[in-house]
Amino acid sequence: MIRAIAALMLSPLAGGCVAAAAIPAVAGSMIVKSQMDKKRERRVEVQETAPAQSVDTPEGRVTVIKGMTALPPPSGAPFDGAPAAAAGKAVPETMQYLYGSGESAGLSMQAYRTLADYLTNNIAYRRKETLRQVVMSDGSSLNVPLFEPCGAKPLAIVLDIDETAVLNLGYESDAARRGGGYDDARWQRWEASGVDKVTAVPGAKMALDAARKAGIAVIFNSNRGNANAAATEAALNHAGLGPAKHGETLWLKGDDGGGSGKDDRRWAIASGYCVVAMVGDQLGDFSDLFNDPRMTPAARRAFAATSPVAELWGNGWFLLPNPVYGTGLKGGFDDVFPADTRWSDPAEGVK
Amino acid sequence: MIRAIAALMLSPLAGGCVAAAAIPAVAGSMIVKSQMDKKRERRVEVQETAPAQSVDTPEGRVTVIKGMTALPPPSGAPFDGAPAAAAGKAVPETMQYLYGSGESAGLSMQAYRTLADYLTNNIAYRRKETLRQVVMSDGSSLNVPLFEPCGAKPLAIVLDIDETAVLNLGYESDAARRGGGYDDARWQRWEASGVDKVTAVPGAKMALDAARKAGIAVIFNSNRGNANAAATEAALNHAGLGPAKHGETLWLKGDDGGGSGKDDRRWAIASGYCVVAMVGDQLGDFSDLFNDPRMTPAARRAFAATSPVAELWGNGWFLLPNPVYGTGLKGGFDDVFPADTRWSDPAEGVK
Repeated sequence: MIRAIAALMLSPLAGGCVAAAAIPAVAGSMIVKSQMDKKRERRVEVQETAPAQSVDTPEGRVTVIKGMTALPPPSGAPFDGAPAAAAGKAVPETMQYLYGSGESAGLSMQAYRTLADYLTNNIAYRRKETLRQVVMSDGSSLNVPLFEPCGAKPLAIVLDIDETAVLNLGYESDAARRGGGYDDARWQRWEASGVDKVTAVPGAKMALDAARKAGIAVIFNSNRGNANAAATEAALNHAGLGPAKHGETLWLKGDDGGGSGKDDRRWAIASGYCVVAMVGDQLGDFSDLFNDPRMTPAARRAFAATSPVAELWGNGWFLLPNPVYGTGLKGGFDDVFPADTRWSDPAEGVK
Repeated sequence: MIRAIAALMLSPLAGGCVAAAAIPAVAGSMIVKSQMDKKRERRVEVQETAPAQSVDTPEGRVTVIKGMTALPPPSGAPFDGAPAAAAGKAVPETMQYLYGSGESAGLSMQAYRTLADYLTNNIAYRRKETLRQVVMSDGSSLNVPLFEPCGAKPLAIVLDIDETAVLNLGYESDAARRGGGYDDARWQRWEASGVDKVTAVPGAKMALDAARKAGIAVIFNSNRGNANAAATEAALNHAGLGPAKHGETLWLKGDDGGGSGKDDRRWAIASGYCVVAMVGDQLGDFSDLFNDPRMTPAARRAFAATSPVAELWGNGWFLLPNPVYGTGLKGGFDDVFPADTRWSDPAEGVK
């Protein structure tokens, strides 16, 4: 086993990922771990946890590796994946942020507190006859959203489950440890067997308790499979967010004939309830229109930020953070960075 | 130039980073780009943009590479960094999320709408004598936070700047393109010369306009350097968020004798104003106590989620998302995933 330290000058984000996944490394005895003292000042601390990790130093981001034995072939031949699994304990930054940071916990608390305040201040005291659905009606566009009056229907809020109501810590810890891509069969086994390995998103229990106390039904609309309905009910109970009953307050993929679009289920729910709030971590938790494949990432972001429906954020539509997976994670350089915001370091001349 | 396609089965997050930064690749003619149809169903689309990118397929995350010419040395010798810069156009997932997604735009709109509503509904109509600072007083702890009465001081809100009020698209696009770690000298040049390459965080202008209209002062407290005060004032004006005047409504690193802690500046501001709201993307934008180096990531997250100050999220303290850099990005496997949430796939036996 080679015991060497490789200092790789990499992008601020990619650095850690490289060490974690691409460079074969067996368990080592030392890593150097990042300890940032606020964003622009950084120092280094030693801790025994994982075989490879990136750190920030005054000289930039450095990746320290122990026990490196081989590299992927430069021929471009397929990689067998085993080394990625072996190095899986360096946690991707997106998971550090979502599952490990106080920042994301605060964001979640903020979203759920805003929901609870909204239900108390904007909804509960109003006469039902003055309310409208926050589910967009069939025939809407993002530029011309349509919301039907509620009439005398009972009030409800509709929530996504994964990374909205519960954090899938068991599945994602396994994913971080093993490396490897998304595996639908494994996810199905997770739905069935991971009941007690989820936790509530910070703030969710407080807000759902407040909703139920105010007489507002709590309904889940998830792309978990309806074959695992009982386990999903149990997972919500484990997280303290139940009760949910499949066919009544729990809607799952397959309930409306299949497909991961959620509009049909939303419309079915809205036929019986006045949906006064929706909660999700993906724009598709609010309308399938956001998942139109013809829409560029920039157009999709513009719709979220400036279209008429943008008025609903924090005001009927409530978002939770999730940089770990989902529809937000796409786009090349030109999609993510508008042309008029490009900058080149003047010390190095125009690129 | 080798023209081969390497299918690397990697972790869901690390995959893209590896292609982006570790594997030298010159500009190719084709990439395969991820187009997710909601989180659990994925399909693939071809687009001409960048030399390498990861995609989700029914078989998992796959990285497609063209034009690979060499790999970092397995000897562990230092890497010269040039290939990382050459492959820099595959955007890290954290940047895709923060700068490119509708999800993060919605989160930001939600935070700023909540701030605006809070100022209108909870602050503006109240008699000043009933208000307290949301800045924790000297001598506070996270378990016993202390907030002084405001007396008759004029009202103010205090905001961080970077990734709170403005998105540093110029600096981060350059970082994504070049690869390489954080470079403080380059950041200083960015502060001085990137004035017109920032944009306002979605919702920020609306909320700041509402605050000023209500007679509430808008004060910035940033770790940008006070040597670049004029450029920072100009950047805020460019983003539509000004005016800010150094020494009055703009506080910078160095103003209080140096250091990146912000408590001293907060206390100086609170000596002249009733600070009714703070806005930031890092917990250190609210209290330096969150940056105590003795605190584990799990303890820090617990303080953010369940301590007395957790009541302030969305209610005096307002968070913006930022998975790209900062104090949230730390922690090894045991820090991020609590022991009682570990799960192993039952199809593969106990690990």
